[in-house]
Amino acid sequence: MSHQKGRLFGLGVGPGDPELITVKALNRLRAAPVVAFPSAPGRKGHALTITEGYLRPEQILLPMVFPVTIETPSTSPDYERLVRDFYDRSAEEIAAHLDAGRDVAVLCEGDPFFYGSYMYLHDRLSGRYETEVVPGVCSILAGASVLGTPLVYREQVLAVLSGVMSEDDLRRRLADADAAVVMKLGKTFAKVRRVIADMGLMDRALYVERATMASQRVLPLAEVAPETVPYFSLILIPGRTWSGPGG
Amino acid sequence: MSHQKGRLFGLGVGPGDPELITVKALNRLRAAPVVAFPSAPGRKGHALTITEGYLRPEQILLPMVFPVTIETPSTSPDYERLVRDFYDRSAEEIAAHLDAGRDVAVLCEGDPFFYGSYMYLHDRLSGRYETEVVPGVCSILAGASVLGTPLVYREQVLAVLSGVMSEDDLRRRLADADAAVVMKLGKTFAKVRRVIADMGLMDRALYVERATMASQRVLPLAEVAPETVPYFSLILIPGRTWSGPGG
Repeated sequence: MSHQKGRLFGLGVGPGDPELITVKALNRLRAAPVVAFPSAPGRKGHALTITEGYLRPEQILLPMVFPVTIETPSTSPDYERLVRDFYDRSAEEIAAHLDAGRDVAVLCEGDPFFYGSYMYLHDRLSGRYETEVVPGVCSILAGASVLGTPLVYREQVLAVLSGVMSEDDLRRRLADADAAVVMKLGKTFAKVRRVIADMGLMDRALYVERATMASQRVLPLAEVAPETVPYFSLILIPGRTWSGPGG
Repeated sequence: MSHQKGRLFGLGVGPGDPELITVKALNRLRAAPVVAFPSAPGRKGHALTITEGYLRPEQILLPMVFPVTIETPSTSPDYERLVRDFYDRSAEEIAAHLDAGRDVAVLCEGDPFFYGSYMYLHDRLSGRYETEVVPGVCSILAGASVLGTPLVYREQVLAVLSGVMSEDDLRRRLADADAAVVMKLGKTFAKVRRVIADMGLMDRALYVERATMASQRVLPLAEVAPETVPYFSLILIPGRTWSGPGG
């Protein structure tokens, strides 16, 4: 009898509310003997927080402790090397379980393939092991639901942007899109808000922090204190309401 | 005792696989005395197909029969008027139940606020009734999961485009994005593929039909026969793999 390798599951666990996990991800999560999840030193991480109520006591937990905080500037050469080494090491820890025949569920906040940390493990492991990815509700759709605002109508173009881009690039791309979401705020917030204000878009722009998490906060963009903005925050500029011809 | 109005729920039921509904949408669906869903003449519609295994026999079904097919050109003045009248009428049918004190769950394929048919009912009703929107897994993330390809890395810009746009506009926007998804294919497919080929992007572009539905089909973009392309198909051009400095 040949030795059977374990299977790799990349599970989107949704944006924060534990009930926003899919039935499929929940089933795969509960069936896996090993559960891997990203965390930070001294913190269990959002993905585990979202799912811990669903875990069974006999499951093996495999925390992948990120070597830098999410707020660390990603511009230093050290950052790149540290992150690459981290994913190399985490992939080998997961591979050890897979080689021993144990399935591994890798938890990923939101959706695994939408800016997800799981992607870097997928790129290292999916060629070697049977792999299934279960999509999840991503943060931008969670944000729109919490804000109660349709995001894009009919043939509107949606641009998903990063606060890290230059002011000129941000301005040009916002001008060119029918609807936009700006992610990766935190330290870039003040710049992003200034561009939005300069472009006369403040009346259309909406702000939400940690959408659907217990610590969720919604407030008018103009009232946000830049130093309080967490990494998990979004600015949405929804497409204009379509209400029919002449509407 | 004052008369209590019913609540409106806009439920994302996910892209096609019944297990890709969220736990929250499933709970709300099963609790609602009235379930409304978009359909077409003689067809039950994808949203009902996805969820029918979850329904209880005593729930009232409210089909909203779309007056035109999804393939009808949206350029005729008749189309605009027909669609607006359809949503006006559907909103009033739902309102009748809400006024009678019955909660109504409106099913929406994918996510309700991401090009969802629910948005037009939300715009007509959410000011009048207590409303909750439950986000769902959208088609583009389902497509990426089925294709096994990470969609966007780190600070990459994602553009969500429509096949309906002009060739020039499509070309310009594809050139400007790190990653892109083209939706609303069907009759526009041949044009979209020609632009992608002209731009030298064929080796990066991926094609999927009805991702996660029972009738899902994945094939190389070059081999797709344009006359067979359904409305529910996508072309994905994923962002380039990030593998660290020099990688």
